[in-house]
Amino acid sequence: MDKQRQFDRELDELKKKLIHMAALAETMIDKAISELVSRDESVADKVPVYEEELNRLQIEIDEAALTLLATRQPVATDLRFIVAATKINSELERIGDLVMNITENAHVLLQQPPLKPLIDIPRMADLARKMVRESLDSFVGEDPLLAQTVIMTDDQVDGLKEQVLRELLTYMMADPRSIERAIALIFISRHLERIADHATNIAEDVIYLTQGRDVRHPRTPKERPADLDV
Amino acid sequence: MDKQRQFDRELDELKKKLIHMAALAETMIDKAISELVSRDESVADKVPVYEEELNRLQIEIDEAALTLLATRQPVATDLRFIVAATKINSELERIGDLVMNITENAHVLLQQPPLKPLIDIPRMADLARKMVRESLDSFVGEDPLLAQTVIMTDDQVDGLKEQVLRELLTYMMADPRSIERAIALIFISRHLERIADHATNIAEDVIYLTQGRDVRHPRTPKERPADLDV
Repeated sequence: MDKQRQFDRELDELKKKLIHMAALAETMIDKAISELVSRDESVADKVPVYEEELNRLQIEIDEAALTLLATRQPVATDLRFIVAATKINSELERIGDLVMNITENAHVLLQQPPLKPLIDIPRMADLARKMVRESLDSFVGEDPLLAQTVIMTDDQVDGLKEQVLRELLTYMMADPRSIERAIALIFISRHLERIADHATNIAEDVIYLTQGRDVRHPRTPKERPADLDV
Repeated sequence: MDKQRQFDRELDELKKKLIHMAALAETMIDKAISELVSRDESVADKVPVYEEELNRLQIEIDEAALTLLATRQPVATDLRFIVAATKINSELERIGDLVMNITENAHVLLQQPPLKPLIDIPRMADLARKMVRESLDSFVGEDPLLAQTVIMTDDQVDGLKEQVLRELLTYMMADPRSIERAIALIFISRHLERIADHATNIAEDVIYLTQGRDVRHPRTPKERPADLDV
């Protein structure tokens, strides 16, 4: 096999590992929120195992990226791709940490009767999972339009987070016995919001990667679409 | 100037930019918490300006790192150093975002009479600032022992965060009128905890960088010091 084909294969391997990390992260979010909704702790049994696997993959990707940089001395797009991989793996690993936090809060909630039917939190989780998947799809497919969709979805997640907070404040005001559970739910909504933020970071890296322009710090959210000309 | 000296100078430039980012982050934390304690919004006037500067520096460091990787094709320690720089700049930039969140919560708090004298939150902020400074010092001085100190300080911050939560739960239970302010203070303590987490991430990168070993995912917190043989 010639050098170029070998290099392409190594890049492909890196891509596959990132996709695997994203799939694990997605599954973890799903299991943690299903545990909460079904009130059955066994649903999230595997979450710590997946989290360990995310940690391991993060290190593998860093090592593979460093080896590629040292041995292949890539330039231009390949270089940017590899450096992006070492940022994206950290984002995915932190999503794993956040899901672990969600299961801790869920543990507190499952010791007590349900406070209220959960609607907005599962909705936030669905959006966050979609954002994780699409951010990785946009990376693999080098698709800045899809990355832009991810960034825009983040506003919906933020909106839901505010809604969750407002609603739970009302519960707390009305009945002090609801406070501990309300706080746990507020924390869960914040963890989901941060998961969405990590997916947004990935999407911004993709736009940077594919367009060679930095959209990571637009002055106002409104400016984003125009800035991108997409 | 020969090529090696030119390269050393470029690496030095990268280091200086990271130190500058850390100094800005430290100042931002200080100003945001001083605003809260003094109840004087003008104290934090400059925070958004510093945040913009952090954003700008993050991009500059990424660009400089990519240029160095493409033109100098570094290996071994230099390569790891440059890749670490592209991770550390993201950590510092996110600290800036978190300080912005703190000022938003502070804004809510300053519209209402003080809920209680603030003791643990300023203490958390002092620890977080120290961690940011020392994590960067450990990077610049390639000092894994100092990095280890940063990682251990994180436990203190987590302890204070739990203490803040427990105390504020008591306030909320006793008086529903305290709930909104208590929630804002809980959020501020969480933002500070996350700032400490970012400093911990930097410290872990430093240990990885200096020892070529990955301590980023010890199985249990207890294993950390023994793992490192420091």
